Amino acid sequence: MSPAATETGRAPTGRGASARVGIIGAGQLARMTQQAAIKLGIELVPLAVSTSDPAAAVAGEKLIGSPDDLEALRALAADCDVVTLDHERVPHRHLAELEREGFALRPGAAAKRYAQDKLYARRALGEAGFPVPEFATTEDADDAAALAERWGGALVLKAIRGGYDGRGVLMLEAASLPGEFPREGEWFAEQRVPIERELSQLIVRGVDGETVAYPLVETVQRDGICIRTVSPARVPSATADACRDLATRLASHIGAVGVLAVELFLTPGGELVLNELALRPHNSGHFTIEGCETSQFENHLRAVLGWPLGATSLRAPAVVMANVLGSDGSDPAELLPDALRAGPVHPHIYGKEARDGRKLGHVTALGQTHEEAEAAATRGAEILAGGSRS
Amino acid sequence: MSPAATETGRAPTGRGASARVGIIGAGQLARMTQQAAIKLGIELVPLAVSTSDPAAAVAGEKLIGSPDDLEALRALAADCDVVTLDHERVPHRHLAELEREGFALRPGAAAKRYAQDKLYARRALGEAGFPVPEFATTEDADDAAALAERWGGALVLKAIRGGYDGRGVLMLEAASLPGEFPREGEWFAEQRVPIERELSQLIVRGVDGETVAYPLVETVQRDGICIRTVSPARVPSATADACRDLATRLASHIGAVGVLAVELFLTPGGELVLNELALRPHNSGHFTIEGCETSQFENHLRAVLGWPLGATSLRAPAVVMANVLGSDGSDPAELLPDALRAGPVHPHIYGKEARDGRKLGHVTALGQTHEEAEAAATRGAEILAGGSRS
Repeated sequence: MSPAATETGRAPTGRGASARVGIIGAGQLARMTQQAAIKLGIELVPLAVSTSDPAAAVAGEKLIGSPDDLEALRALAADCDVVTLDHERVPHRHLAELEREGFALRPGAAAKRYAQDKLYARRALGEAGFPVPEFATTEDADDAAALAERWGGALVLKAIRGGYDGRGVLMLEAASLPGEFPREGEWFAEQRVPIERELSQLIVRGVDGETVAYPLVETVQRDGICIRTVSPARVPSATADACRDLATRLASHIGAVGVLAVELFLTPGGELVLNELALRPHNSGHFTIEGCETSQFENHLRAVLGWPLGATSLRAPAVVMANVLGSDGSDPAELLPDALRAGPVHPHIYGKEARDGRKLGHVTALGQTHEEAEAAATRGAEILAGGSRS
Repeated sequence: MSPAATETGRAPTGRGASARVGIIGAGQLARMTQQAAIKLGIELVPLAVSTSDPAAAVAGEKLIGSPDDLEALRALAADCDVVTLDHERVPHRHLAELEREGFALRPGAAAKRYAQDKLYARRALGEAGFPVPEFATTEDADDAAALAERWGGALVLKAIRGGYDGRGVLMLEAASLPGEFPREGEWFAEQRVPIERELSQLIVRGVDGETVAYPLVETVQRDGICIRTVSPARVPSATADACRDLATRLASHIGAVGVLAVELFLTPGGELVLNELALRPHNSGHFTIEGCETSQFENHLRAVLGWPLGATSLRAPAVVMANVLGSDGSDPAELLPDALRAGPVHPHIYGKEARDGRKLGHVTALGQTHEEAEAAATRGAEILAGGSRS
């Protein structure tokens, strides 16, 4: 029996007939979840820091409050049938407390911990036999230097909590370690994995343990930030099968409910190594909005509500998503007509203030070939980013 | 030069970089428009009668007010770059006044009149050479009886303004006319057209006159209410071409901006006869959300904002939409899991209070054949309607 704290949560109470889902966070993930909620007649209530947050700006009802504030979380939970999350930055003890009080938190605190505490995830999944990189705790620069020497002259330092979009991950050489060891925060060390491709396998798991898998995705990174996803991944079918099997086992093992994104490294030798987990709709699944029968956002809602899951098949031979990253203060909302003029693409604008390096939107393109879809999506995202992505 | 009052409207002012679109009305059409607005980063502000209206419940900002109140309309227009509509029930003089004051109303008042005043539309389009049924004004039951005799013993009485979903259309026999002639309202009489199929051709026309056409739709009616749409329509390609050409000419002739739905009768002899017009997203275009490259709602927004229009091609060989009509007080929101379990369908729930005969949602199914899509969509809608649609 896998841990499944959420299954003990209280059943949806049903205010009127519409299901009411609270979502902790009001970023672009909650915003895109709202599109699916509108379709299904679900009342989605975000807990937002500000009324101008991407999801708060498109929600009829919202709660304004901090995810650090247990009272705010409790108010959201008390007002909804089910509570889910659009990020990891909620104190774990608050999630555990919500469950203790009988609220239906999905995914549950025990499962969510695998995405909140990277050291815990490495330990627990390593012990359970999942293929994690070699890792070790490290107290200081001397520790780290010794580990780097043992691992061939380099290592990765990872923040135990809170890192995302390249933050919280440091690629360091043994020689430079004394100067570059971070002075704040809690970190652990990991062996660098030789990478042939970075992959992401999205699984959706229902309250009853039903799982569906999306087609395997390649993610293309720059400076630790995903700039593009390509699906289906250009890997042998045995590799794709192995990813699906591994991620499905992992979803059941940790008792995930909703979307689980399993990031994997494929080594030049053909091995799969676990990278990060996310228990929420994930950037590597944005292509599913137009690219698949059922989007990750709709399937996440269906899963957390205990509803049947939808088909995950691709709607075209190739689907590519390119992120729109802020640069030079140019605003994608102004450039949207240009992007629409340039070709058959699906731009999404998140309604966020433009800042350098920030994900402001994305562009999805469907194609008969990977090249066709990649060219269209990349071009669209370049235009929306002000032309500077070349 | 076609009438195009909207083109003289003031240019979008751009509050921040996001386009801001006011929509008069907050029903399911505005609600589905909000899904497209979220994607494109557009701020959609509905003028709603109540905060529980389908679109108001999913809008970050809304104005509460009546479409009969010029002050409310003016407040909406002053707060937005462009104003559009999700229904016809706005006094025409108010629309004309908004334009006179320089607001960008799209479609403009002159174009919108073709959907607001059925007698005006018949006269003006008949004079312009479009194929309208034979019609005549009628003051009383005696008038009407004489017309019915002339037309073979029967006629159609139509409310000049305000009819929809079967209301405002009476099919009468000469014999029963004295008793059934309506005592209130303004009506005109029309010859009954022998109907082989009812069709709907959706056109989207931009501010610059660019038009795109969706695949032709068959509409299946019961008691004057559309219960199902089937696309592409099962008619000879010459008929489909003729519908597209007729509707495209009509869109330019009346200076439409945004979606124009042209309802047509196909007679057993293969003639096309105009039925009603709608200048807004239309029930016969709901299939475009999943069924086409670009939905009617997205294209409507793109059109009224002066942006390039999106591709209208079908994503499957056959796409069928079935309306969910209220019956016996059963609520589709409660039945949704059952519908999702029954097959690969796309249900949409409008968040309206369940009442008999009211459109509460719809179900779209894509298929390799018309039969496959029709069976799936119909079954899904039956389940959501409480099983009573057999």
